Amino acid sequence: MEEERQAARRPGGRSARVRAAVHQAVTDLVAERGYGNFTVGEVAARAGVADTSVYRRWGNLEALLMDVAITWLTTQSPIPDTGSLDGDLRAYAANVARDVTGPDGPAVLRLVIALSTAGPDGLRARDAFLAERSRQLQTMLDRARDRGEDPPDVLDVLDHILAPMYIRILFGAGPLTPDYSGTLVDRLLSHK
Amino acid sequence: MEEERQAARRPGGRSARVRAAVHQAVTDLVAERGYGNFTVGEVAARAGVADTSVYRRWGNLEALLMDVAITWLTTQSPIPDTGSLDGDLRAYAANVARDVTGPDGPAVLRLVIALSTAGPDGLRARDAFLAERSRQLQTMLDRARDRGEDPPDVLDVLDHILAPMYIRILFGAGPLTPDYSGTLVDRLLSHK
Repeated sequence: MEEERQAARRPGGRSARVRAAVHQAVTDLVAERGYGNFTVGEVAARAGVADTSVYRRWGNLEALLMDVAITWLTTQSPIPDTGSLDGDLRAYAANVARDVTGPDGPAVLRLVIALSTAGPDGLRARDAFLAERSRQLQTMLDRARDRGEDPPDVLDVLDHILAPMYIRILFGAGPLTPDYSGTLVDRLLSHK
Repeated sequence: MEEERQAARRPGGRSARVRAAVHQAVTDLVAERGYGNFTVGEVAARAGVADTSVYRRWGNLEALLMDVAITWLTTQSPIPDTGSLDGDLRAYAANVARDVTGPDGPAVLRLVIALSTAGPDGLRARDAFLAERSRQLQTMLDRARDRGEDPPDVLDVLDHILAPMYIRILFGAGPLTPDYSGTLVDRLLSHK
């Protein structure tokens, strides 16, 4: 126990390694089988840890899936601070395009959506995903307002930057190039 | 057999009733449990038909799910023909807003997305969904061009009319009112 508490405090320690291995196992299983088609036991086996380690730390599968989705979201697509609204939106849209087309992007996106049919815990996960994305974006838009710029609403960014990219990934529709993410920003800003 | 063949020809006959009952059972099970969490046997039991009736008509669960998604799509959100691009887009966006917020909308949308992790049959279903939506929209946009109007591309309609509504439904974000669908059309047309 003492050893475990110490490990939890030490980045890169055993606790962090277990967490990373379990998260990767979840992401891989979501990508391969889709949500709802694997168990805590299968996650643990793939991560090379005991079932009890997973239950002790996360409680149940839904809570683990929630942690994976939120962690992915908060560490991917960092919010830029370039000094201008135009620069920030452009860099942010390019980050999102890169991350959702990356190796884990589609699986995590489908995970967040699948969670919304998985009862109260799943709904909380989905809402936490959205709240975190909104909070990150609001910080960026507030900085623009503080500089005297006229930023769009968070919901406009969701509707016209994130939604088109998410739907293109989910439906396999159209390309998701850096040019494309720039065009989305152009359209959004031409309305201000 | 003879009776069944006759029923298949008669709208509202036994064959049509079985089809409707099986489709409704699938939609309900997707809404309650999510994709991947029910069997052909459970669908048949809920629809009040024999398992063999389902297998004989659809072959397997994926093919049945595909049929449900495509049928819903092609019978919902009809393509309007109001005589102007503005009128058509406005009526279409309002139709989509009404249907995706209706009793079966969110479940069918999640079904289409879940199918894309369900192997080749699922991918075909998703692509068929998108191809059918695109074909319907292209017909409407072609009529506008024939009248001498300057319509947007199908992908622009997907990105800025359908994607925001789909993502708001999937993420439970923001309201989906008739006013909102009108605003999406205003933004799209102001770019032409």
